[in-house]
Amino acid sequence: MRFISIIMGSKSDYEVMQECAKVLDKFGVPYELIISSAHRSPHRTKSYVSEAEEKGAKVFICAAGMAAHLAGVVASLTVKPVIGVPMKGGFMDGMDALLSTVQMPAGMPVATVAVGKAGAVNAAYLAMQILAIDDEELRAKLQEDRLSKAKKVEADSSEVEVIIDATQA
Amino acid sequence: MRFISIIMGSKSDYEVMQECAKVLDKFGVPYELIISSAHRSPHRTKSYVSEAEEKGAKVFICAAGMAAHLAGVVASLTVKPVIGVPMKGGFMDGMDALLSTVQMPAGMPVATVAVGKAGAVNAAYLAMQILAIDDEELRAKLQEDRLSKAKKVEADSSEVEVIIDATQA
Amino acid sequence: MRFISIIMGSKSDYEVMQECAKVLDKFGVPYELIISSAHRSPHRTKSYVSEAEEKGAKVFICAAGMAAHLAGVVASLTVKPVIGVPMKGGFMDGMDALLSTVQMPAGMPVATVAVGKAGAVNAAYLAMQILAIDDEELRAKLQEDRLSKAKKVEADSSEVEVIIDATQA
Amino acid sequence: MRFISIIMGSKSDYEVMQECAKVLDKFGVPYELIISSAHRSPHRTKSYVSEAEEKGAKVFICAAGMAAHLAGVVASLTVKPVIGVPMKGGFMDGMDALLSTVQMPAGMPVATVAVGKAGAVNAAYLAMQILAIDDEELRAKLQEDRLSKAKKVEADSSEVEVIIDATQA
Amino acid sequence: MRFISIIMGSKSDYEVMQECAKVLDKFGVPYELIISSAHRSPHRTKSYVSEAEEKGAKVFICAAGMAAHLAGVVASLTVKPVIGVPMKGGFMDGMDALLSTVQMPAGMPVATVAVGKAGAVNAAYLAMQILAIDDEELRAKLQEDRLSKAKKVEADSSEVEVIIDATQA
Amino acid sequence: MRFISIIMGSKSDYEVMQECAKVLDKFGVPYELIISSAHRSPHRTKSYVSEAEEKGAKVFICAAGMAAHLAGVVASLTVKPVIGVPMKGGFMDGMDALLSTVQMPAGMPVATVAVGKAGAVNAAYLAMQILAIDDEELRAKLQEDRLSKAKKVEADSSEVEVIIDATQA
Amino acid sequence: MRFISIIMGSKSDYEVMQECAKVLDKFGVPYELIISSAHRSPHRTKSYVSEAEEKGAKVFICAAGMAAHLAGVVASLTVKPVIGVPMKGGFMDGMDALLSTVQMPAGMPVATVAVGKAGAVNAAYLAMQILAIDDEELRAKLQEDRLSKAKKVEADSSEVEVIIDATQA
Amino acid sequence: MRFISIIMGSKSDYEVMQECAKVLDKFGVPYELIISSAHRSPHRTKSYVSEAEEKGAKVFICAAGMAAHLAGVVASLTVKPVIGVPMKGGFMDGMDALLSTVQMPAGMPVATVAVGKAGAVNAAYLAMQILAIDDEELRAKLQEDRLSKAKKVEADSSEVEVIIDATQA
Repeated sequence: MRFISIIMGSKSDYEVMQECAKVLDKFGVPYELIISSAHRSPHRTKSYVSEAEEKGAKVFICAAGMAAHLAGVVASLTVKPVIGVPMKGGFMDGMDALLSTVQMPAGMPVATVAVGKAGAVNAAYLAMQILAIDDEELRAKLQEDRLSKAKKVEADSSEVEVIIDATQA
Repeated sequence: MRFISIIMGSKSDYEVMQECAKVLDKFGVPYELIISSAHRSPHRTKSYVSEAEEKGAKVFICAAGMAAHLAGVVASLTVKPVIGVPMKGGFMDGMDALLSTVQMPAGMPVATVAVGKAGAVNAAYLAMQILAIDDEELRAKLQEDRLSKAKKVEADSSEVEVIIDATQA
Repeated sequence: MRFISIIMGSKSDYEVMQECAKVLDKFGVPYELIISSAHRSPHRTKSYVSEAEEKGAKVFICAAGMAAHLAGVVASLTVKPVIGVPMKGGFMDGMDALLSTVQMPAGMPVATVAVGKAGAVNAAYLAMQILAIDDEELRAKLQEDRLSKAKKVEADSSEVEVIIDATQA
Repeated sequence: MRFISIIMGSKSDYEVMQECAKVLDKFGVPYELIISSAHRSPHRTKSYVSEAEEKGAKVFICAAGMAAHLAGVVASLTVKPVIGVPMKGGFMDGMDALLSTVQMPAGMPVATVAVGKAGAVNAAYLAMQILAIDDEELRAKLQEDRLSKAKKVEADSSEVEVIIDATQA
Repeated sequence: MRFISIIMGSKSDYEVMQECAKVLDKFGVPYELIISSAHRSPHRTKSYVSEAEEKGAKVFICAAGMAAHLAGVVASLTVKPVIGVPMKGGFMDGMDALLSTVQMPAGMPVATVAVGKAGAVNAAYLAMQILAIDDEELRAKLQEDRLSKAKKVEADSSEVEVIIDATQA
Repeated sequence: MRFISIIMGSKSDYEVMQECAKVLDKFGVPYELIISSAHRSPHRTKSYVSEAEEKGAKVFICAAGMAAHLAGVVASLTVKPVIGVPMKGGFMDGMDALLSTVQMPAGMPVATVAVGKAGAVNAAYLAMQILAIDDEELRAKLQEDRLSKAKKVEADSSEVEVIIDATQA
Repeated sequence: MRFISIIMGSKSDYEVMQECAKVLDKFGVPYELIISSAHRSPHRTKSYVSEAEEKGAKVFICAAGMAAHLAGVVASLTVKPVIGVPMKGGFMDGMDALLSTVQMPAGMPVATVAVGKAGAVNAAYLAMQILAIDDEELRAKLQEDRLSKAKKVEADSSEVEVIIDATQA
Repeated sequence: MRFISIIMGSKSDYEVMQECAKVLDKFGVPYELIISSAHRSPHRTKSYVSEAEEKGAKVFICAAGMAAHLAGVVASLTVKPVIGVPMKGGFMDGMDALLSTVQMPAGMPVATVAVGKAGAVNAAYLAMQILAIDDEELRAKLQEDRLSKAKKVEADSSEVEVIIDATQA
């Protein structure tokens, strides 16, 4: 079974990363979700990654804050795409975690998304877009989602719009 | 044919993005490479993305600096994965381009990599890791590359190493 | 009819941008106000800009946060002046949106104002100052407003002032 | 005669601001250009602004670095639109000048553009876009310029493009 | 009469600047305190500075936030020492106001202190230290204050101290 | 008796630094804790450091915020290792204190840890790791603590884990 | 004799601080200049400050970079005004030194000027402005200097000015 | 044999870290020095740390840039003190590496020093200060070094000093 693996560095990341899981649930995309720390449980992290990969994990989503090493450590253990979600908690609204996540050495990329909830949601979308390359059904769902987002903008607008009458203008 | 599409916002990005192309060349992964600007040639950008997708583009790599909108614009035009490479040129070594690239709204992710050459190289690796999910041959090459990188570290080290004799220690 | 067009990237920008509309209301300057996103509704944004321009929009005010591309996208679609209001919500009190808005490529300026409410108010003033170049009545109102602002400072001061008696000094 | 007034805070800004003047020259838009400092020559600045306005200045472009007060001072002296060009020279590639320029109090906007040469060029474009609201000829020139910029992108691209043969793909 | 002049750019600065006035009250140093804005009431600011100087103002303390030009404008109008207190309210806890205040051109210094209340208090101390150069009584008071601050540290410590018994150690 | 000395620059640091003391209490490592300021009580700071060293202080932990000089001052008074804990309170979540603490001149290192509570806790751990070099009992406790931290991660994970059945996968 | 005391933290600051000395030389204001480090020579710093004060030092100018503690240490040793000149050399063009210098605790102000040469020059001006409160001759020289600076602006301008003929306008 | 272990993440760090080795050489303190990457050679890093510890490594010094994970990874593998030296190369003069190094989770401290050469030198001093706790000879050398540093300051000063004659003053 092809699935997405979500790893959080700490229990405190769970609230934010639930937003990631919710998106996958909504699209019916299977995933695993565990807590494992780059620093506090390095062995667990390592063995989990290889087990998950064996079971069918195709994309890893890693969330961590401060000296956010988790995504980097996972990226060094697999050639599957690794998506990094920087968490707030340290400096400047998570800028520290963003830089710790995105500045990887050549050959070990981490696909970095925005800090916090916006990033948690987009990590799910990015993972699905990756799987959708060879999954027409999922791709159709993603395209539909785009349309519904555009419609949502129009609906939101209609609540507050001020439009000048064209005949009067 | 499955290929990777590289779009640069400006001719001045070419020198850096050649590093991206070189990596793909080395691994024998086909790609397109064009210049098209989010602001100066929006129509060209839009029509190129749909044509490329039709021809077989599976991943887009977009490089832009300053108010780096290119990756975001492309991300709004396709549900294929879009990788953003922030370019230096504005503030603080490209921090402005990094933030313009990574902070996308929910549902329109840009997989952001490091600023400049490090990012250009890693964009190529990330795109290949995405294609390698369903391409065993490419995956094997990527794994081999990891081994050669580890060996390179050892070789580099051997040139400068100072090791204390264990018997003496 | 000459009017000002206000476009917000998201419903969440409405509260702040009402401050912009209020200023225009106070001066009796006609405006349109809609929500349209650079990423989520690119087609709507594009068609709205050309329709508004046709109806008489002379200045565009665009508000967006995070990877704030909206003003830039509108600026690429028209040669009317485009004013960008960066919104808070991402990093460092909106610094990310400020840099995404102000760092435009040569030939596609966005007239950037302060982040958040201060910027929303000043976008209205800037738009009116532009229209007032050829509108003596509006210019007179703006000059009067300056005087009332100076008087307000004096009134504010008189509530807290500590002044040393000149004869005693 | 309607013209644009360019004020620089220091002789050292001249090299950068020549780029602004060159753009106006190219479009045949008349302008004045002087050096006057907010701090070192406050009287000169004040009397120049009112004289220029009387002679026909419709837009002011002000360039200053570090504690970049010039645009703000000019904005407090006129209700004509004032464009601020932050100069490098202090902290973080001109971030200090950008913040000093853009963060104006309510009712005294400065239309801020990018730092340095990019901003100098765009200040010219922004000033012309403002004048072009009621100048069809200038507007046509600006639209033509957009087309030539789009063509330039295509020309630049053709020098480096790698395109996969559609029949082969 | 020798006195200190405190100028705030806005009524919203009053709460913080009261801390400055309180210190002067405590030391019995006479002062004036008014609100006058660099941008909204430039004439008032200018005429106040020359009147205050004539009456006996020996040091100016200027408080402003965002594009904090007030101290700079006052510094350009007098050769008396001008102390700038940056206020919070814009970016990064007042960093914008700090940079706008401290980065003055050569020959027009602003003696900058910390942002907000800490700065408001220290502006009072700095102004008194300047006056105390030729005022032995004030100097004695300042020296006494230093001793009481050192004693306060000891008193604070004694409430929480954990000290290992020297005989046991 | 070998002990650790904790010095705080201000009473306001006590709440955070209690976290440091609690860790030492838990491991049964003796410590002193006092308040002494680099600026407000320089003599006390100096005499305390030499007395503490004489009594058996082996590592100093210094906590201070803003222009955080305390750790640096202590580092200039002793060749014992000095650990600096930057406190929040100034700019950007304590970035100012971090830079004031870590950027020491050659030959006077301060072993800097994270800002605030995370740093307070880690200062205790770092001090213990230093003492544990020659204290097998303490080293064993520290290793045990690592195991319990890894177990805590597993326990935390088990509360939220979503694991795909391997047989099904 | 009333004089100004300049203290640099390191020999590497000498080149920049010569600009400070040159200004004082030009105005004929007596000064001392020494190197003494807050960290490397704390005793020398302490004894120098009290000796200098005894001899007639009325204002101290302290220059230091990175964790710039020198001005703060001197400020804790005297109630004479202390001017801090942050030096480049660490992070972000001297931002670290600026924050280390300006963020002093209540009651121990450091009058902070711009980073580097601009600050070195302005430290001299600020010190002279302080002395000029009770020195009419020096005050006259400072006022004259202001006039010559305004004239310099005009002279600079005349080299590059573009002025539209008023009759033609 | 008690020794210090220096690990660099990349060959490009060697030039800077030689400064660290030179200091240890000067004091005659034995050390090992190797290159091993957190990401490119994670197995080598892990096995080296345990071997070095077995041979007698008492302190680890780890140097890395960008997403500087090396010190953190080593800190997770040992309870020996780990000193982190952030390298330049990414954003803002190494601020990214500083934050990646210092922001460690509770219980896994990295003793962080300044970025680049200043940090490389101080890492050596800090490591020696740690060893010197139980090594009187080394402690004496470190104290001597302090005296020579203070003398160096005096010697540097004597080359540039301007001192006012006390009798004349």
